[in-house]
Amino acid sequence: MLYLDGNSLGRLPLGTINAVRSVVEEEWAHELVLGWDHWIGLGETIGDRLAPLIGATAGEVVLSDQTSVNLYKVASAALAGTGRTIIVTDRGNFPSDRYILDAVARSAGGELRFISEDPTLDDLAAALDASVGVVSLSHVGYRSGVMLDGAAMTAVAHDAGASMIWDLAHSAGSVPVALNEWNADLAVGCTYKYLNGGPGSPGFLYVRSDLLEQLEQPIPGWFSHADQFAMSETYEPARSIRRFVVGTPPIISLVAAGVGIDMTAEAGIDAIRRKSIELTSLFTEGLTSLRHHGLVQITPADPGSRGSHITVSHPRGYQISQALRAQNVIPDFREPDLVRFGFAPLYNTYAEVERALEILESILTTEAHATFPEARGRVT
Amino acid sequence: MLYLDGNSLGRLPLGTINAVRSVVEEEWAHELVLGWDHWIGLGETIGDRLAPLIGATAGEVVLSDQTSVNLYKVASAALAGTGRTIIVTDRGNFPSDRYILDAVARSAGGELRFISEDPTLDDLAAALDASVGVVSLSHVGYRSGVMLDGAAMTAVAHDAGASMIWDLAHSAGSVPVALNEWNADLAVGCTYKYLNGGPGSPGFLYVRSDLLEQLEQPIPGWFSHADQFAMSETYEPARSIRRFVVGTPPIISLVAAGVGIDMTAEAGIDAIRRKSIELTSLFTEGLTSLRHHGLVQITPADPGSRGSHITVSHPRGYQISQALRAQNVIPDFREPDLVRFGFAPLYNTYAEVERALEILESILTTEAHATFPEARGRVT
Repeated sequence: MLYLDGNSLGRLPLGTINAVRSVVEEEWAHELVLGWDHWIGLGETIGDRLAPLIGATAGEVVLSDQTSVNLYKVASAALAGTGRTIIVTDRGNFPSDRYILDAVARSAGGELRFISEDPTLDDLAAALDASVGVVSLSHVGYRSGVMLDGAAMTAVAHDAGASMIWDLAHSAGSVPVALNEWNADLAVGCTYKYLNGGPGSPGFLYVRSDLLEQLEQPIPGWFSHADQFAMSETYEPARSIRRFVVGTPPIISLVAAGVGIDMTAEAGIDAIRRKSIELTSLFTEGLTSLRHHGLVQITPADPGSRGSHITVSHPRGYQISQALRAQNVIPDFREPDLVRFGFAPLYNTYAEVERALEILESILTTEAHATFPEARGRVT
Repeated sequence: MLYLDGNSLGRLPLGTINAVRSVVEEEWAHELVLGWDHWIGLGETIGDRLAPLIGATAGEVVLSDQTSVNLYKVASAALAGTGRTIIVTDRGNFPSDRYILDAVARSAGGELRFISEDPTLDDLAAALDASVGVVSLSHVGYRSGVMLDGAAMTAVAHDAGASMIWDLAHSAGSVPVALNEWNADLAVGCTYKYLNGGPGSPGFLYVRSDLLEQLEQPIPGWFSHADQFAMSETYEPARSIRRFVVGTPPIISLVAAGVGIDMTAEAGIDAIRRKSIELTSLFTEGLTSLRHHGLVQITPADPGSRGSHITVSHPRGYQISQALRAQNVIPDFREPDLVRFGFAPLYNTYAEVERALEILESILTTEAHATFPEARGRVT
């Protein structure tokens, strides 16, 4: 399999096999409830290990719930008490983000305000006024692969008095992120793409340390209580990142996520980024000779403006993605006509890029894709 | 280990070992993103297999998120649009439930109204009026072990025009639950106790079929969209139980939960309940001869009014729980002075009950517990 979909689901790290066996077959099996003595803070300790990869400080990051639920929590917390009711995002943001941000804004009596996909600084600035409480953008767009300027966008949001929430789903583990340097307020992301945490592994969230004691999240569970086991009548939020956790976390999935995070940290995000640029550049150079087949590269040619996947559009994009799969090349497809090629520096090789280009060229030249159905596929 | 804490974390089913190995080492490893072709509906198919255990119909139950997040979703959905703002629960309900129900009521401009722990039908009826939109109770109390009359309580709530939400955390897999017969509106529960799903395994939720197209949950994710992969600009909720799912589910944890649920279904809830009554009766009979040591049984003597754990109070409850652990008997402790003994019919034996009583008697007689610290322990 020539796997170019690490931007959707990362590969299984070898170390995860033993880690999962151990937590299931040793810890759960033999420690049983006593395992909670060390499981209880796992979301926080893994968060501490993830923090340097996204430019955050220990104590500001926790693994908890899913990305979507985390976005709901931090967006609600950011908007509450601001006296503002508008949230700004871009039209190309991931569906869950758009739906959830809209729901949060509406429940505050406001609404979601869209800016164009892959917005410029001017696009963002033009959309801001004193009614905007929150700006939320994906650092790397899931469709376009465009990487935004985290520092500059955050500054524009702050200039208008809005909080900035970054979705790092396509950034964490693939490009340098500097949440503290950017002065970002909040962030969310997932661990199953470039962090190789496993299918549906837990999401993470980041809260800048000075906000930890100010913000109130909307789903107060026993894990977010200042004194969890007091089981007290009144809710008192923890004064730490636990404040944003809700209930009992999925330990097996957390352990798996931890292995992927540690492996990524060991490789180092700068080395990962260097190889990512080389892989994607090699691929985009190859694509130029295929343009006459109707392929249009959506992702920027400038490596500094993109993440680690390259998206192309083609009127027969779905059929092309199916033809590639039939030859064991795995990209993914996004409506209406986008084929995404993800390059995960931890395991994708330069030879794989060249082989993928050869197969793509052969499909386009022979029109092998024409024999595949035009119906939509189902990939996450 | 003499494990009497299956009411907190159930044991590892043998079948789970291979199931988890398979989903990690075969499916994730080799199918990668293509695994989503069969993972995508796993929360629903496992929900269908859980449904008969709680008296629900296929299509009404889904595994998703954690119990706490699920309660937030269903309570928000139930209260929205009713014109009512009060939620009623009992003072002894699980902390997350109380905190979350309070947050939901407050965000609707109302508040949480408490009734006494382990309420009678009259207690509930007396608290209801036209301002109460939702009643939410734990079917089996986590502290007391009291089992409420599901049908009668639901009828009382309905008579006052309120929706009824059951928390089945301590019921699912241990006592018969008949959500459809009770005409319950909504329910939530966890899979890591008597369903043996593993530490922090996913929660489940139930929505009565006629409500599926009426209710709007507050966290609209791409998994709850009517056409998930259209990635469409506007949100349109699914007309199925998927409507209450949010984001990408944790597949490894889901697979583990499925094994525990299937094992429980195979044993049959009626057989489980029979053995539960025998185990708890054997234990409570033994307790009567220990009363002079200051032990007070909190859980009802009538088996028809209790679940599958027996709670005793003792001024030195924490020390007693530690003394038991030191002899490899594992109950758990709840503030301020409660020791809970859980009897999981799938694996606890009659001989274990007798042995636990012997050890408890020996500790109390020799005052072995006096040597243990009085500080609180940390167990979930």
